[in-house]
Amino acid sequence: MKIIRFFYKDEIRFGVLKDGGLVDFISSPFEGEPVKLGLSAALKDVRLLAPTAPSKVVAAGLNYTDHKVEMKEEDKKEPVFFIKPSTSVIAYGDDVPLYPWVGRTDYEGELAVVIGKSCRNVTASEAKDFILGFTVLNDVTARTLQKADGQWTRAKSFDGYCPMGPYIVTDADVSDAELTTRKNGAVVQKTRTSNMIWNVYEMVAAVSRFTTLLPGDVVSTGTPSGIGEAFDGDVVEITVEGVGTLKNTYRLKE
Amino acid sequence: MKIIRFFYKDEIRFGVLKDGGLVDFISSPFEGEPVKLGLSAALKDVRLLAPTAPSKVVAAGLNYTDHKVEMKEEDKKEPVFFIKPSTSVIAYGDDVPLYPWVGRTDYEGELAVVIGKSCRNVTASEAKDFILGFTVLNDVTARTLQKADGQWTRAKSFDGYCPMGPYIVTDADVSDAELTTRKNGAVVQKTRTSNMIWNVYEMVAAVSRFTTLLPGDVVSTGTPSGIGEAFDGDVVEITVEGVGTLKNTYRLKE
Repeated sequence: MKIIRFFYKDEIRFGVLKDGGLVDFISSPFEGEPVKLGLSAALKDVRLLAPTAPSKVVAAGLNYTDHKVEMKEEDKKEPVFFIKPSTSVIAYGDDVPLYPWVGRTDYEGELAVVIGKSCRNVTASEAKDFILGFTVLNDVTARTLQKADGQWTRAKSFDGYCPMGPYIVTDADVSDAELTTRKNGAVVQKTRTSNMIWNVYEMVAAVSRFTTLLPGDVVSTGTPSGIGEAFDGDVVEITVEGVGTLKNTYRLKE
Repeated sequence: MKIIRFFYKDEIRFGVLKDGGLVDFISSPFEGEPVKLGLSAALKDVRLLAPTAPSKVVAAGLNYTDHKVEMKEEDKKEPVFFIKPSTSVIAYGDDVPLYPWVGRTDYEGELAVVIGKSCRNVTASEAKDFILGFTVLNDVTARTLQKADGQWTRAKSFDGYCPMGPYIVTDADVSDAELTTRKNGAVVQKTRTSNMIWNVYEMVAAVSRFTTLLPGDVVSTGTPSGIGEAFDGDVVEITVEGVGTLKNTYRLKE
């Protein structure tokens, strides 16, 4: 099932996207089992939003060995986390802002987990029961600031630095899915999710050891090697096999 | 004016605390100018909550030179920030959880700014117009994990690691207020807010350069030297002159 979130007649709605571009409206999938509302629209008639409005996005650094080598980082016993705030989230198709004063701004293609039910201190084997599904996320990073700060938070928290979507896929097998990032059509990142150091369930478990994950919250699972800068007008497309393609254009913000 | 947030008959309410412990109920101060609701209660009959339910707490590392020296950190041109999630917030009087597996857990007494109106890219001189008031915050930190991770987020994000309160003071002069932290009555941190490297308005301006601050969001302004560990049963009281005293007990969590 592909769940989208969208504006329709000035209201925020959820729907299930069917083949042929029809959207069946449903109740919020973050408030118990969603029910069909008996209302439909064509996809072209709705304005897509990020598929969830998370209270927080907890993201992992360095969950692929090749990216860890690329960033010259040491091995850790546990994933290293940072938080992207709700205000950084944008939708499929929204422009990623390039702020002139921040310097180099990168793409980082990632597979993200969308939490369906509140959880805390769950094991990896329990985690599945609290996951609604998966989506694609671009962990946009102000690389120059990240290095200057040492701490990653500011560099990853700017408004617009967390494109997500286009939908939440509830039945994807993400154990060995291909992840590909394209910049203006050219492949710049390519891996398989089986190359993760900690898999999606281990990630959710690790996050739930320190913070309560609320319905709609997102755990992003790290980026592989091949990260790089994007410039005004660059189109970045991130595809996770079975989960979808997230497409955004980087635009200089005046 | 001292604004509190509390449970009263199973509802979350705001009120103005008057001398003598009477609470006059008001509408949310985060939704325009608050209005009196013509309802009152005694302070002893309400259950205090953190004075705001922020979408995020953006906190600064190393905003007092003495603490920077204590942590052996270098000078930076700008404050270094991290985010504490909404799920870490607790109230005056709530227990601070000591999780047995995390090791050393510290107190860090801080002055915090509560945002009243949404702002982005404001200057220090404009910042005042977007601030509702000030409160006291304990930036509880899992020190062992902080050092192991390098990144500070996990160590500062645990459920219960952000005690705040007891109220928001809307008319405090925090330009040179004394800040004192006591552990079991003994003074462990003592400074004046005039020792901040970046003052409260510069802090709000710096945060608003990268993220939209929403009504109810909190900017915490860093801790002075004297940080230290707290153990099961320890009572930590943080006082900011003119802003109030935040008191919490650390309790081992089974």
